[in-house]
Amino acid sequence: MKSINIGMVGYKFMGKAHSHAYRDLPMFFPKHIRPEMKVICGRNSQGVSEAATQFGWQEYTTDWNDLISRDDIDVIDINAPSDAHKEIAIAAAKAGKHVFCEKPLALTLEDAREMLAVVKETGVKHMVNFNYRFTPAVMLAKKLIDEGRLGKIHHFRAWFLQDWITDPNFPLVWRLQKEVAGSGAHGDLGAHLIDMAHYLIGDISEVIGMNETFIKERPLPTEMTGLSASGDENSQKGEVTVDDATLFMARFANGTLGSFEATRFATGHRSTNSFEINGSKGSVIFDFERLNELQVYFENDEEDVQGFRRVLATDDAHAYSDVWWPTGHTIGYEHTFIHAVTELLEAFAEDRQPVPNFEDGVKCQQVLDAVDLSIEKRQWVQVSDL
Amino acid sequence: MKSINIGMVGYKFMGKAHSHAYRDLPMFFPKHIRPEMKVICGRNSQGVSEAATQFGWQEYTTDWNDLISRDDIDVIDINAPSDAHKEIAIAAAKAGKHVFCEKPLALTLEDAREMLAVVKETGVKHMVNFNYRFTPAVMLAKKLIDEGRLGKIHHFRAWFLQDWITDPNFPLVWRLQKEVAGSGAHGDLGAHLIDMAHYLIGDISEVIGMNETFIKERPLPTEMTGLSASGDENSQKGEVTVDDATLFMARFANGTLGSFEATRFATGHRSTNSFEINGSKGSVIFDFERLNELQVYFENDEEDVQGFRRVLATDDAHAYSDVWWPTGHTIGYEHTFIHAVTELLEAFAEDRQPVPNFEDGVKCQQVLDAVDLSIEKRQWVQVSDL
Amino acid sequence: MKSINIGMVGYKFMGKAHSHAYRDLPMFFPKHIRPEMKVICGRNSQGVSEAATQFGWQEYTTDWNDLISRDDIDVIDINAPSDAHKEIAIAAAKAGKHVFCEKPLALTLEDAREMLAVVKETGVKHMVNFNYRFTPAVMLAKKLIDEGRLGKIHHFRAWFLQDWITDPNFPLVWRLQKEVAGSGAHGDLGAHLIDMAHYLIGDISEVIGMNETFIKERPLPTEMTGLSASGDENSQKGEVTVDDATLFMARFANGTLGSFEATRFATGHRSTNSFEINGSKGSVIFDFERLNELQVYFENDEEDVQGFRRVLATDDAHAYSDVWWPTGHTIGYEHTFIHAVTELLEAFAEDRQPVPNFEDGVKCQQVLDAVDLSIEKRQWVQVSDL
Amino acid sequence: MKSINIGMVGYKFMGKAHSHAYRDLPMFFPKHIRPEMKVICGRNSQGVSEAATQFGWQEYTTDWNDLISRDDIDVIDINAPSDAHKEIAIAAAKAGKHVFCEKPLALTLEDAREMLAVVKETGVKHMVNFNYRFTPAVMLAKKLIDEGRLGKIHHFRAWFLQDWITDPNFPLVWRLQKEVAGSGAHGDLGAHLIDMAHYLIGDISEVIGMNETFIKERPLPTEMTGLSASGDENSQKGEVTVDDATLFMARFANGTLGSFEATRFATGHRSTNSFEINGSKGSVIFDFERLNELQVYFENDEEDVQGFRRVLATDDAHAYSDVWWPTGHTIGYEHTFIHAVTELLEAFAEDRQPVPNFEDGVKCQQVLDAVDLSIEKRQWVQVSDL
Repeated sequence: MKSINIGMVGYKFMGKAHSHAYRDLPMFFPKHIRPEMKVICGRNSQGVSEAATQFGWQEYTTDWNDLISRDDIDVIDINAPSDAHKEIAIAAAKAGKHVFCEKPLALTLEDAREMLAVVKETGVKHMVNFNYRFTPAVMLAKKLIDEGRLGKIHHFRAWFLQDWITDPNFPLVWRLQKEVAGSGAHGDLGAHLIDMAHYLIGDISEVIGMNETFIKERPLPTEMTGLSASGDENSQKGEVTVDDATLFMARFANGTLGSFEATRFATGHRSTNSFEINGSKGSVIFDFERLNELQVYFENDEEDVQGFRRVLATDDAHAYSDVWWPTGHTIGYEHTFIHAVTELLEAFAEDRQPVPNFEDGVKCQQVLDAVDLSIEKRQWVQVSDL
Repeated sequence: MKSINIGMVGYKFMGKAHSHAYRDLPMFFPKHIRPEMKVICGRNSQGVSEAATQFGWQEYTTDWNDLISRDDIDVIDINAPSDAHKEIAIAAAKAGKHVFCEKPLALTLEDAREMLAVVKETGVKHMVNFNYRFTPAVMLAKKLIDEGRLGKIHHFRAWFLQDWITDPNFPLVWRLQKEVAGSGAHGDLGAHLIDMAHYLIGDISEVIGMNETFIKERPLPTEMTGLSASGDENSQKGEVTVDDATLFMARFANGTLGSFEATRFATGHRSTNSFEINGSKGSVIFDFERLNELQVYFENDEEDVQGFRRVLATDDAHAYSDVWWPTGHTIGYEHTFIHAVTELLEAFAEDRQPVPNFEDGVKCQQVLDAVDLSIEKRQWVQVSDL
Repeated sequence: MKSINIGMVGYKFMGKAHSHAYRDLPMFFPKHIRPEMKVICGRNSQGVSEAATQFGWQEYTTDWNDLISRDDIDVIDINAPSDAHKEIAIAAAKAGKHVFCEKPLALTLEDAREMLAVVKETGVKHMVNFNYRFTPAVMLAKKLIDEGRLGKIHHFRAWFLQDWITDPNFPLVWRLQKEVAGSGAHGDLGAHLIDMAHYLIGDISEVIGMNETFIKERPLPTEMTGLSASGDENSQKGEVTVDDATLFMARFANGTLGSFEATRFATGHRSTNSFEINGSKGSVIFDFERLNELQVYFENDEEDVQGFRRVLATDDAHAYSDVWWPTGHTIGYEHTFIHAVTELLEAFAEDRQPVPNFEDGVKCQQVLDAVDLSIEKRQWVQVSDL
Repeated sequence: MKSINIGMVGYKFMGKAHSHAYRDLPMFFPKHIRPEMKVICGRNSQGVSEAATQFGWQEYTTDWNDLISRDDIDVIDINAPSDAHKEIAIAAAKAGKHVFCEKPLALTLEDAREMLAVVKETGVKHMVNFNYRFTPAVMLAKKLIDEGRLGKIHHFRAWFLQDWITDPNFPLVWRLQKEVAGSGAHGDLGAHLIDMAHYLIGDISEVIGMNETFIKERPLPTEMTGLSASGDENSQKGEVTVDDATLFMARFANGTLGSFEATRFATGHRSTNSFEINGSKGSVIFDFERLNELQVYFENDEEDVQGFRRVLATDDAHAYSDVWWPTGHTIGYEHTFIHAVTELLEAFAEDRQPVPNFEDGVKCQQVLDAVDLSIEKRQWVQVSDL
């Protein structure tokens, strides 16, 4: 197989990031299977047409059913709003298409499980785009853990802090509506932390959470693009139906203690997606705002020079460094998407399931739901009970 | 009143820090009431005698009852091991002595309340030494909050991370024995975080916690000084009866969400005592390892230059800066003790109770106990129920 | 004009960076003139053929004279080794082609001036790729200066620190040979600092420098790619004919004091390209290893909260932020090339010379040469004397 | 010898720092010779009398000749304004007193040499207080160099940045008058950098400098204390006769390249006293605003985890750590003075000259003068020519 044909649903923020990944990938990974940018799909005809031209798709359509029924499409890439994931993914799989789905996989655990069942049944390849896994500095953390260089892990703490809705006049965009977004900070940001925890530490046994919607009513939106939008103090208001912030504590199957916080009310933090891991032999700290760096500490360094090292993960020894620029020359947010797509392509080349896939999407949703249940019940919940 | 006479119980790590505060204070605060270093008390005759000479106390004794019965002592400073606080404090107050007590006030909430009742009854002055309050950078955070410059507070998160017992052969010192220390990381480190929360944010309504003792048995100690000690793989072992780490989530009376973590297993962190506060108008971040600094963010900074400022709290505008060195010249850990003692002395000058006092000690203990109860019950606990 | 046709000479590190810029640009700047990736040129037939396919060029050639003589080429992009810039640029201009040239413009000031004379004579557009100017955080610094928000500038200090040749067995690659590279750290790294100084502060009046070649002989290279290469302790050795490090001090026409350092022997620094500017009202600090950030200080901040702000230049108020990802999502090294090319395209759209152009290239070379002369003479040199 | 008697001249900023050192020292270094705070001397009777009481001196005098003629004084501590150092030091030495002198030793090299000649002749002990040498993190840097752990040193760069006179209305205090202060930033701040260079790297062979007085006239002062003072736009003005900033480049005897900058116009920097050293095997970075930390890099760290380590120099392995607080508990500016005095006391105990002594003071002055001469001549100057 030399190339695979992509049909993509969605053309906004994520659609742009995915398109760019397909577009850039062949230049940097010339030996990989080539992703052909066949058809892009969106509901707004003018919007999707412009996106097709701008992003470099060969065709566009406004009906995802058309997309799925075409013979010349191998993979359906779903980055439509979260409430549409399930229907499209299931239909795609049933049509024999492989599925590459943005996170969160679905709005509920039940839906996610149904999606997983279908992709398994149909035998298609499936991947969920937890793109942060594919940050070289994160992959270095993973490597250190896997090689035992951090020892037994005692603590995992993770926080995803944003501040884009602290203004009470920020309008009621779709991300603040439960029926479309599923949840707020929890599903949007917390989901990334949970997947990171699964990737780096392993299964979570039990959780207990708390959440809050600090601003309960907001003006209805008049316009929006990406994460920015405009509202008006005098506009009619609607109820915010998702969480502004969700925190939870967790115990992992391997005994690690976990602490998680996702919030959109951390004034001053544009997008601080961070974790720290403490093991018996060492520790690591990561912050996505400085995504090329990993702070690393080793217990057995010589006594007089122990301290966290600021490792710039652009050296020969780091993932993907051969592909990009010389050591010391950094990459950005968008590169995590390119790396994620290489995993999809390698799975095709090796005829295996990509990782993370729908299993991981379900596991993530299971924890998200367990946290929500623990909030409702005000007590610890076993993840396996869901 | 020109001076007051101090009698101090304890001469180890805290005894040294307190002694230094009394010794240095008159030089830097010459207009304050002068603390006279009268008598130091400890159980080991040779040890306390040497300490008296080294630290500059006029006399020493091995019996704290003697100390309390002397007419020429105004204040009893208690920094003996935590399990001795209650008995000494109550006896001192009943003897009409003012009491300056190291934290934690007591090993249990019941004991702390009894102590508070006695000091109130006897009408003596009482203070508990939550010294971190007296860090200029922390006081700047307090000022920003009080002046409304951070707006409504949404998030408080605090973490006190140490790594001095990650080695399984570190011995079973008194700090790891419940009957002497009361608790482990929770009471030792978490207590500081809780007091900081009370100081900066206000009352905590409800909590839920989790804890862990990662290493359940340790060699019996052969020798120890300060926080360091030596053990031996082949020594007889004893059970660790305190927590190595305690995490909890909290809801404050004013609606702030809280997250707390105290651990002695955070490899690479010698003594990271930190907090972050996010308000509707601004945020602050503090780390005691860089105690002269406060990071400050303001929402209403000009749009193109918004960012966390690294404020070095050594300017004229900062607390105690007139007393120490010119701007840009930093102070250290020990200075927080000197500042704490000035509060005690000012309370004498103004004939009022110092702050923080036993009320604060009780409040702190109440939260500590509420967390422990929540761990036992595995559900949220109202602090006021205790 | 809807598009312009590019012919590019060079296909290694810089060729890849330029190709990527042309490839990505239309997706993010859809309203700009479209750069058509017509022909790529390189001496090695197989190499350039593979590069053409990988990077997305329509054709390739091994003879740059062919390239220049084609009617369907508008712009010649020169990123061949530095010793080839002059001949190609002059031939291209004489053939009526616009020229986009990598820095350094030439190996000597004389050559650079001849190139400038020719492009002026022929009336073609000319640009030299000082790509670091196009970093959003750097552009923020420029804006603050231009708007007077830093006041009168007193100090400019800049340092470009790398460590890729500290190993004595690193071989004698072309960058270490004067006849090909012109100079070492001075022309390679220092040139960037000088252009940054011109961009941000203005003309340099006088300079005095010092330099050193720490390792005077190196093994002849056996193989090389990008900045990495392999040598061998036992290989035959050759003389290093360029500087490993060059430092110089400068006085600017406007009275600013300047300090510059370029070195390849700063162990631990992969590519620290930094500057700091102190003005009467404020200061900025920049480090390309954290290229999304600018540290900014304002003298007139409120007295108790003065400090350097860490500004993440990804907000709406920052250059190019509308084009890339939402606030808080960072970009990398390669984006500076895309931005540089947009300037070239905008110059076409507005029918003006792009900036920086050969005038800037000459000015940079003039300072480089003045520094070298000052080293030879061991005294200050007026830049205008050259 | 159990104790030595100190007579001190000066009671302002430095007098306070020295007094505190004597006062605190016996508590933390109980086995050292005890410095008895005998007599403090100052010109203003009321001022010195108050200082004596506040700082804890047994007596005071307004005539340093009295001080020197007393039999019960062993050491004369000179921290009077710089222009008085010479006369007092020489008189003291001739009276058989040991001399502990603040930096700069003198206003000119000639004077410094005369002072050195006298102390040598008279055989007294002599020390110059380059207190920054006694910072544990700096001593760690020294240790790493001495043990060869940084390899051959290629680069030393040092910068001492302050911003206390950027306001044109800051008055013409003594530090801005050549006849009293000798020089401005150069002698005040640069002297510390030069001594640091001597301590860490070794002798400087040749230098070339530049300097500037940005604000050439200032209001005459109305009042002053420490580094702060008040002036008035409408006051009469006087000429600033010292440098606001001095930069210089240097070549060390061992081949290291040096870069130095001392300025009082670095807006935003209260007192950034920093250096960076790059060797063939490693590098260190130090900043006195974070004086407990040293950043350390080792070339031979494992390939995937190379990076600068933030070492908190408060561990058992670090200088003086046994004396102060447990690991992770920081010290401040004043501690460097205490450490410096321990060196003086140890020299008495071991009957040797303390280090740094007048030889070091002369060497420092020699470089200061060589830089000034190079500025005057506008060319490189050999330090040994002075």
